Amino acid sequence: PDSKLPQVGTTIFSVMSQLANDAGAINLSQGFPDFDGPEYLRKRVAHYIENGANQYAPMTGIPALRTAIADKVERIYGRVTCAESEVTVTSGATEALFAAIAAVVQAGDEVIVFDPAYDSYEPAIQLNGGKAIHLALNPPTFSIDWNALKAAINQRTRMIVINSPHNPTGAVLSADDLEQLAEIVRDTDILILSDEVYEHISFDGLPHQSVLRHPELSARSFVVSSFGKTYHTTGWKVGYCIAPAVLSTELCKVHQYLTFSTVTPVQLALADMMNEMPEHYEELPAFYQQKRDLFCQLMEGSRFSCVKTSGTYFQLMDYSAISDLPDTEFCRWLIEEAGVAAIPISVFSEAPMETRLVRFCFAKGDDTLRAAAEKLCKI
Amino acid sequence: PDSKLPQVGTTIFSVMSQLANDAGAINLSQGFPDFDGPEYLRKRVAHYIENGANQYAPMTGIPALRTAIADKVERIYGRVTCAESEVTVTSGATEALFAAIAAVVQAGDEVIVFDPAYDSYEPAIQLNGGKAIHLALNPPTFSIDWNALKAAINQRTRMIVINSPHNPTGAVLSADDLEQLAEIVRDTDILILSDEVYEHISFDGLPHQSVLRHPELSARSFVVSSFGKTYHTTGWKVGYCIAPAVLSTELCKVHQYLTFSTVTPVQLALADMMNEMPEHYEELPAFYQQKRDLFCQLMEGSRFSCVKTSGTYFQLMDYSAISDLPDTEFCRWLIEEAGVAAIPISVFSEAPMETRLVRFCFAKGDDTLRAAAEKLCKI
Ligand SMILES: CSCCC(=O)C(=O)O
Ligand SMILES: CSCCC(=O)C(=O)O
Repeated sequence: PDSKLPQVGTTIFSVMSQLANDAGAINLSQGFPDFDGPEYLRKRVAHYIENGANQYAPMTGIPALRTAIADKVERIYGRVTCAESEVTVTSGATEALFAAIAAVVQAGDEVIVFDPAYDSYEPAIQLNGGKAIHLALNPPTFSIDWNALKAAINQRTRMIVINSPHNPTGAVLSADDLEQLAEIVRDTDILILSDEVYEHISFDGLPHQSVLRHPELSARSFVVSSFGKTYHTTGWKVGYCIAPAVLSTELCKVHQYLTFSTVTPVQLALADMMNEMPEHYEELPAFYQQKRDLFCQLMEGSRFSCVKTSGTYFQLMDYSAISDLPDTEFCRWLIEEAGVAAIPISVFSEAPMETRLVRFCFAKGDDTLRAAAEKLCKI
Repeated sequence: PDSKLPQVGTTIFSVMSQLANDAGAINLSQGFPDFDGPEYLRKRVAHYIENGANQYAPMTGIPALRTAIADKVERIYGRVTCAESEVTVTSGATEALFAAIAAVVQAGDEVIVFDPAYDSYEPAIQLNGGKAIHLALNPPTFSIDWNALKAAINQRTRMIVINSPHNPTGAVLSADDLEQLAEIVRDTDILILSDEVYEHISFDGLPHQSVLRHPELSARSFVVSSFGKTYHTTGWKVGYCIAPAVLSTELCKVHQYLTFSTVTPVQLALADMMNEMPEHYEELPAFYQQKRDLFCQLMEGSRFSCVKTSGTYFQLMDYSAISDLPDTEFCRWLIEEAGVAAIPISVFSEAPMETRLVRFCFAKGDDTLRAAAEKLCKI
């Protein structure tokens, strides 16, 4: 029989990292830091591994970690209470996204996504018999057209996927955006999947408007976050999902058969980290804003142009002054000609894109950013 | 809307471990060792964490680990060659099982499972629109009735799930069994999912008949294994799937959106372990056989009776001389009355079971086994 996902190839992140490695290029494509997480956290993992914490964690997560997450949610998003039973620890945010979709999307359901959309949403929807309905975010602000959303909703709409800070554009939703969303879904059964993996990375004083700040929305939402992004440890693959008990129950029915549980010594160390250094994430905006600003300043000497990103550790750059190539071809060319890898963004949209934009990851040491910018300024 | 998995509750493994912990009982229910993996392996993980190997692994796995797995497969199952491209590292065997099913099972497909069947198979089949067809293994040998299999196959049959050494019964397939299977699926498109997570744990000199020994079968098979079982590290959640390139490609289309990749420092350490101590797994049969024999001998003083298990680290025990309770109730009673937790096996079968059998995990220190047996001999 035919492939279940005939249109799916290898994810762009693997493709570009592989090309970058093969060419010895500086890899600003796939989103991961080239520096390490907090030493305390790493030492705690080693400690637990040495001290026999190497068997299955509870399916929903280590209790101390679930409690620490629930406490943090209450502390920083103030307006909701969060019970431990509303927290599920997963093998990365990717698993949480898949499990949330698999838990509730059925054959014939429609799920609305905003393009450019992270590439895991649509295959997850398809594998569960649903249909992704694509609405475009429009450059340069990449804000949501709420009227278009209202018009797209119908009896088959099961879920809306939002993502703020937004990957790959860096757009950040406002409190007013959440109000608009709440108004649109009020009196419907529509669920929200809110991908907030960059919750702690927004700039210029812009606060992250978590769905968890909004009691009405959070009552119908799966909210997904990632320790990999927050603690510079993308390779540990620990994320979590927060959802009301009735949704968490359905999520866990899937999670327990997707991965069952998540690395025990890492979960224990994360709980210690959250308890001992609860303020760590507060450093992230300034830390990454310096990198964003450095990269953008260095790139002023290039023929790329940009609007500074509002969140995430990604910066879009317009290359229309350099090339007429479509972005996927431009990225291949850029690896060869400049020795720098980026991510094309058209691959995240259903409709053909008119823009000439690529995404650079600036979660890198300043020297790496300087070396990359120097190369990019030459082309 | 209703639950997508209305008949699914919390997995029996979580339920029984929780009951055991709440009651302070000796937990011989969920399958995990109460001792640690090799010190060398644990030290290598700590080493990589300290040395900056904390970002995303490649989606298909760390190359050195895939190579080590492929080499081992060639070495010990001799009859097939195994390319690195046929190996996908996953977040536990559970993820590999789910991904294999999600990759190929479509709406309307039938998948044959043998009861008692590990509890993740059927929900994975259902979530992908398939229908599990249950064939019973018959006690006391729990062998497969090949004529029944032949009769169950039809145009809708997409996959057959086999599991050897078999959880929860400990039954081990013979070379003749694989021949029978090959004959039945010959001239069909039916795929095999072979759950071999206990591949290194079989007893009394009985060799594990991996599907990978059988070129004809392995050409249509997903073969799943687990580092957690082999290295006493169930909490690290690293497993893998071996399948022909065409099937591995489909598997990865799903894997990349289920979890994307698996803990980097653990993968690197596992590669070192496989290269430096390639003979480690050879110790496992004698190591666990001693535990099986100790436990069975101690239990001779009880009113339980058993046929010694042929593989896995599980021992079924017949309690019909003690109680007429159904096994789930008996297990609850046993926690309260004896302070020992076991797994009921009727939960793994669709048809009601006549037998009075529960499963004990003997992957425990000898003192734990002695303490448990002492309690069990009193009831
Ligand atoms: C899972 S690999 C992709 C990492 C990432 O989130 C990104 O580069 O956008
Ligand atoms: C994933 S928890 C269950 C562990 C196990 O394989 C078993 O107890 O059978």
